[in-house]
Amino acid sequence: MDQALSDYLEQRQSMVNEYLDDYITGKPILTSLKTSMLYSIHAGGKRLRPILMMAACEAFGGNKKEVLPVAVALEMIHTYSLIHDDLPAMDDDDMRRGQPTNHRKFDEATAILAGDALLTLSFQTIMEAEHLTAEQKVYLVHELSTASGALGMVAGQLMDMESEGNKISLEHLEQIHHLKTGRLLSFALMAGAYIGGASEDQLNSIKETADLLGIIFQIQDDILDVSGNEEKLGKPVGSDSTNHKSTYPSMLGLEGSITQKEHYVARAKSSLKQADVGETKLFTLIDHLSNRDH
Amino acid sequence: MDQALSDYLEQRQSMVNEYLDDYITGKPILTSLKTSMLYSIHAGGKRLRPILMMAACEAFGGNKKEVLPVAVALEMIHTYSLIHDDLPAMDDDDMRRGQPTNHRKFDEATAILAGDALLTLSFQTIMEAEHLTAEQKVYLVHELSTASGALGMVAGQLMDMESEGNKISLEHLEQIHHLKTGRLLSFALMAGAYIGGASEDQLNSIKETADLLGIIFQIQDDILDVSGNEEKLGKPVGSDSTNHKSTYPSMLGLEGSITQKEHYVARAKSSLKQADVGETKLFTLIDHLSNRDH
Repeated sequence: MDQALSDYLEQRQSMVNEYLDDYITGKPILTSLKTSMLYSIHAGGKRLRPILMMAACEAFGGNKKEVLPVAVALEMIHTYSLIHDDLPAMDDDDMRRGQPTNHRKFDEATAILAGDALLTLSFQTIMEAEHLTAEQKVYLVHELSTASGALGMVAGQLMDMESEGNKISLEHLEQIHHLKTGRLLSFALMAGAYIGGASEDQLNSIKETADLLGIIFQIQDDILDVSGNEEKLGKPVGSDSTNHKSTYPSMLGLEGSITQKEHYVARAKSSLKQADVGETKLFTLIDHLSNRDH
Repeated sequence: MDQALSDYLEQRQSMVNEYLDDYITGKPILTSLKTSMLYSIHAGGKRLRPILMMAACEAFGGNKKEVLPVAVALEMIHTYSLIHDDLPAMDDDDMRRGQPTNHRKFDEATAILAGDALLTLSFQTIMEAEHLTAEQKVYLVHELSTASGALGMVAGQLMDMESEGNKISLEHLEQIHHLKTGRLLSFALMAGAYIGGASEDQLNSIKETADLLGIIFQIQDDILDVSGNEEKLGKPVGSDSTNHKSTYPSMLGLEGSITQKEHYVARAKSSLKQADVGETKLFTLIDHLSNRDH
C-alpha cells in the first residue's frame, strides 16, 4: 500500500474511532450496558465501511464532517451484527480478533442487549446528526433499515445458517453474500455519494460499483482462505473447506475464482469512472481492497 | 367496561392488526424469517400501546390514519422486546399468552434474528409513512430510539436482570419500571399527541400523564399478582412472591399499594384535564386501564 493511502486510512479511522467513543461515552447509559457496548466497539475493527462512506462522500466533493455520524451509525450496525452472530445459538464463536467475544467477556443476556442497544443507537445517531436536513435523514434511515433488516443483512444471516452443511448453487451463494455483507457495503458507498451530492446518474453508477464490491470482497475472502498467509490473516487457512462451506474456489477452482474476481474488479472500476470519480481516493481505495492480502 | 369503549378498543385493534399484517406480509421477506416475525406479531397482544397512541392523536383532533404507521412501529418494538426477553439467556420463558415462545416454536437463532428484524423494520415503517413530513419522522424516530434503546427499555431490561434476587429500594424499582415499560408507554402518548397537533404546553401535560401511567400500570400488575383472579389473568397469582421479586405490595403492602396507585391516577387525570382532553376517549381509556382486572 502506498504511504498516501495508508495515511488516509489511518486518519479516517481515527476520526471514526474518536466520534464513536465520544458519542457513546457522552450518553448517560447504564454503566454495565455501556461497558459491553464499548467493548465490542473498541474491539479493533478496520472501520472499512465508515471509511468507504467517507471516501465516497469526499469523491463527490462532500464534507467528511457531514457524513461522519452516518458512517458511525453504520459501524454500530456492523458491530451489533457481529455480537449477535457470535452468540452460542448462532455461530457460537468464543474469540473474535484475538479477544473473547462479547458474550464470553460478559454473558449472553448482556451481549444480546448490547447488540439491541447498538442497533437502536445507530438510528438515534443519524437523527442527532447536526449537518443533515430532515429529508436527508429520512432517506438515509430508510436505506439503512432496508439494507440491514429483514430485507437485507438479517435475512442473509438466517439464509447462511439455513444453508450450512447443504450443497447450494453459486446463485444461492451470491444471494447470501449480497444480503449478508453486500447490502451494508453498498449502503456505505451509496450514502457517502448521496451526502456528497452525487447526481442520480452518478448514484446509479455507484450502486453498480457497490454491488460488485460486495461480491469482490467475498471472492477475495474465499481465495485468502485457500491461498492466504496465516500470519497476515491472523487465522488458519483452509477452515472453509474443513467446515464444508460453499465457496467460490470450491465451485470455480482457485484460478477460476481469481479470473471471476478480476472480471468484477474491471467492471467496478469502469462504473466508478462512469460516475466521474476515477481519479479519487475512493478509486485507489477500492483498487487496493480488491487485492488485499488479509 | 362500557360498550362504547369496548367497541372503540376492538375497532382500533382491528386497524392495527390489519396494518401490521398487510405491511409485513407485503414485503418480500425470506419466508422462514417472515413466518417467525408474524408468529409473534399474531400472538394475541392487546395492542395497548398503539391504541393509546391513536387515542392520544384523536384526542387532539388528529387523524388516526396519520398515526397508524407509528403506532404499528411501536408495536413492532414491543414485540421484538418480548421475543428477546423470553430467550433462554434472558427470562427463559417457554410459553407466552398460552402459546410457545418464539424460540420454542422455531429456534433460538431464528428468534434472535426475528427480533432484530422487527426492531429494524420499526424504523423503516416510520420512514415509509405516507402522511407525515420529514421533520415529523425525524422527531418521532429520535424519540422512539431514545425510549427503546440504551437510554430506555434496553437499559431497563438489563437493570431488571441485574436486580434479580437482590433487595432493592422503591426508588430503584421505579427506575427499572420507568425504563423497561414506562418509556414506551410514554412514547405512545407523546407521539399520538404530537401527531395530533398538541401544543408544547399540552405535550408537557401529556408527558406527565404518560410517566404516571407507566407507574400505575406496574402497581396494578403487582396488585393483580397478589389479589387477582387467576382465570381472568390467565396465569397463576402469587408468582412474584415465589420468585422473590421486589413489588409494590412487598414494599408498601396491598392497601398501601392501592392508595399509592389511586394517588397517581388522580394526578394523571388532572394532567389530562390540564391538556384539555378531559372529555375524550383517551381519558375514558386511561381511567379504564387504571382499574383493569387482567
